Amino acid sequence: MTRPALLFAMAVAVAAAADGPQFTLDGRMTPPRDYRQWVFLSSGLGMTYGPLASTREPRFDNVFVNPSAYQRFLETGTWPDGTVLVLEVRGSQSKGSINQGGHFQGDVRGVEVHVKDEKRFPRKWAFFGFEGEAPAKAMPTTSNCFTCHEQHGAVDTTFVQFYPTLLPVAKTRGTLKP
Amino acid sequence: MTRPALLFAMAVAVAAAADGPQFTLDGRMTPPRDYRQWVFLSSGLGMTYGPLASTREPRFDNVFVNPSAYQRFLETGTWPDGTVLVLEVRGSQSKGSINQGGHFQGDVRGVEVHVKDEKRFPRKWAFFGFEGEAPAKAMPTTSNCFTCHEQHGAVDTTFVQFYPTLLPVAKTRGTLKP
Repeated sequence: MTRPALLFAMAVAVAAAADGPQFTLDGRMTPPRDYRQWVFLSSGLGMTYGPLASTREPRFDNVFVNPSAYQRFLETGTWPDGTVLVLEVRGSQSKGSINQGGHFQGDVRGVEVHVKDEKRFPRKWAFFGFEGEAPAKAMPTTSNCFTCHEQHGAVDTTFVQFYPTLLPVAKTRGTLKP
Repeated sequence: MTRPALLFAMAVAVAAAADGPQFTLDGRMTPPRDYRQWVFLSSGLGMTYGPLASTREPRFDNVFVNPSAYQRFLETGTWPDGTVLVLEVRGSQSKGSINQGGHFQGDVRGVEVHVKDEKRFPRKWAFFGFEGEAPAKAMPTTSNCFTCHEQHGAVDTTFVQFYPTLLPVAKTRGTLKP
């Protein structure tokens, strides 16, 4: 490999690694920065399964994934080690500007993350809930997140059934749960 | 600049240019590829202002922008030449898998694009509607898109009032329409 090509390959590798999960020395996860510039998977409104569902207002769920994991999913139909799925929950508004019906998105109500790190977590994946910039401990493996994702997640405990650009990839690659 | 640094700078420049609008020799725009890997701005459900609004089903509007334009907006509070905003309209579903309430996203119902190219378009911006892979002609400047965007768009004829991560940037930079 020539020197410029090697430098370019290194820059690409650094960029790919930079979007993986980051942990403190004591094992807490730091909240992902810049996830709004990651790949958007889908959005729902008022979905009743959500961990931060509210009876007072219908909330939007936006789901993002780190770009390196998205690329691997397109190639393989499943998630690599280092996958970070971010669930951003936002309030909704109905009246504003020219919009007089339907719903558009308001402020962030919470951020939860689903992370794959096979060496770090006994069940391969873990869940974290963030408030502001503080690092968070993994949720206990007795939490409902595990039961529900393991039971109902279409691909590798994740809800690919709700991600319209990934579902056909999983079908083609044969990675959907039977 | 050293040769490796120059090559790296060129690679970055090519990557930045690669997400701009593409036109055929006769001035039609080719549908943006890979816009689902661009930056997501927001999503609404059943918004009544939408060009592809339906009375039969509430539809989701997902808005994406090319990454180079997003970066410039963060720096300046407004859009550079070469901005491409994509409005992806999707059907909605209410019952499926574990979800028994609320709405999640279904198939694409249409893709419309708002493009800034000051040399090409007399009004700086133009609108295109796509069906499949075919290049499209710009919508006539008599279309409602122009009137509504020019009258109600919060920043440079665009609906930044509905994009929660960009609205604070425009406020800070003082680029909101008075």
